Amino acid sequence: MITLIWNRKGLQFVASDEAGHQIIVDTDIESGGFNQGFKPMELLLVALAGCMGMDIVSILQKKGGKIDSFKMVLKGEKNPEHPRRYLKIIYEIECKGEYRREDLIRSFELSRDKYCSVLATLKNPPEFEFNLL
Amino acid sequence: MITLIWNRKGLQFVASDEAGHQIIVDTDIESGGFNQGFKPMELLLVALAGCMGMDIVSILQKKGGKIDSFKMVLKGEKNPEHPRRYLKIIYEIECKGEYRREDLIRSFELSRDKYCSVLATLKNPPEFEFNLL
Repeated sequence: MITLIWNRKGLQFVASDEAGHQIIVDTDIESGGFNQGFKPMELLLVALAGCMGMDIVSILQKKGGKIDSFKMVLKGEKNPEHPRRYLKIIYEIECKGEYRREDLIRSFELSRDKYCSVLATLKNPPEFEFNLL
Repeated sequence: MITLIWNRKGLQFVASDEAGHQIIVDTDIESGGFNQGFKPMELLLVALAGCMGMDIVSILQKKGGKIDSFKMVLKGEKNPEHPRRYLKIIYEIECKGEYRREDLIRSFELSRDKYCSVLATLKNPPEFEFNLL
């Protein structure tokens, strides 16, 4: 569960989770925001990257890999018309350390095909329920 | 574009956008994290809430509404098996101020059906490309 509250300035919001973490959600100044936090479409990419990153790092370590650095870069190609949804999302995954290449590939495949719950949600649209109080 | 870098501790990462904002992505201690930031599945809900929140606040204001407070609560029901994707996502939207109820409903409908790019991405799975460097 998350809560999002309007900051009463432009299009800036504060999001909270149940553990009490908070982040600012904002947008460009030209779009009516204050550019003081991630935009929603970027947060979608962060969710995708974080989920797969956790899977790969943990599985590769369980396979005995020693990871020195791990980086993912995600880019999205947007629909030119409304809604400006992502038509394509491109992942670049860079993992440095001492491990077998086949173990990295297997860790990635397990995340993509079995464990990554964010990716699986994107691939299989959930049901949505909206309640306007 | 976003970048995600492993913090070299547990399953904690730092995400950055092109404007230089940063957030911590983490998970529960029992799952191997440090519980110092949002989890990926919660960030997906934040992305959905933020996108629709921006639409509703901006459209309702353009219709002449005066908003005193605006809050969204999003809950997800997860698949009990891997992948633990969201089967259902439930939105609660609470907007207080001086506006016509029909304008709030119309603002919400325009977001849901036309403008919300995060929701539209969830409803229409994008293509994915993975590059293991």
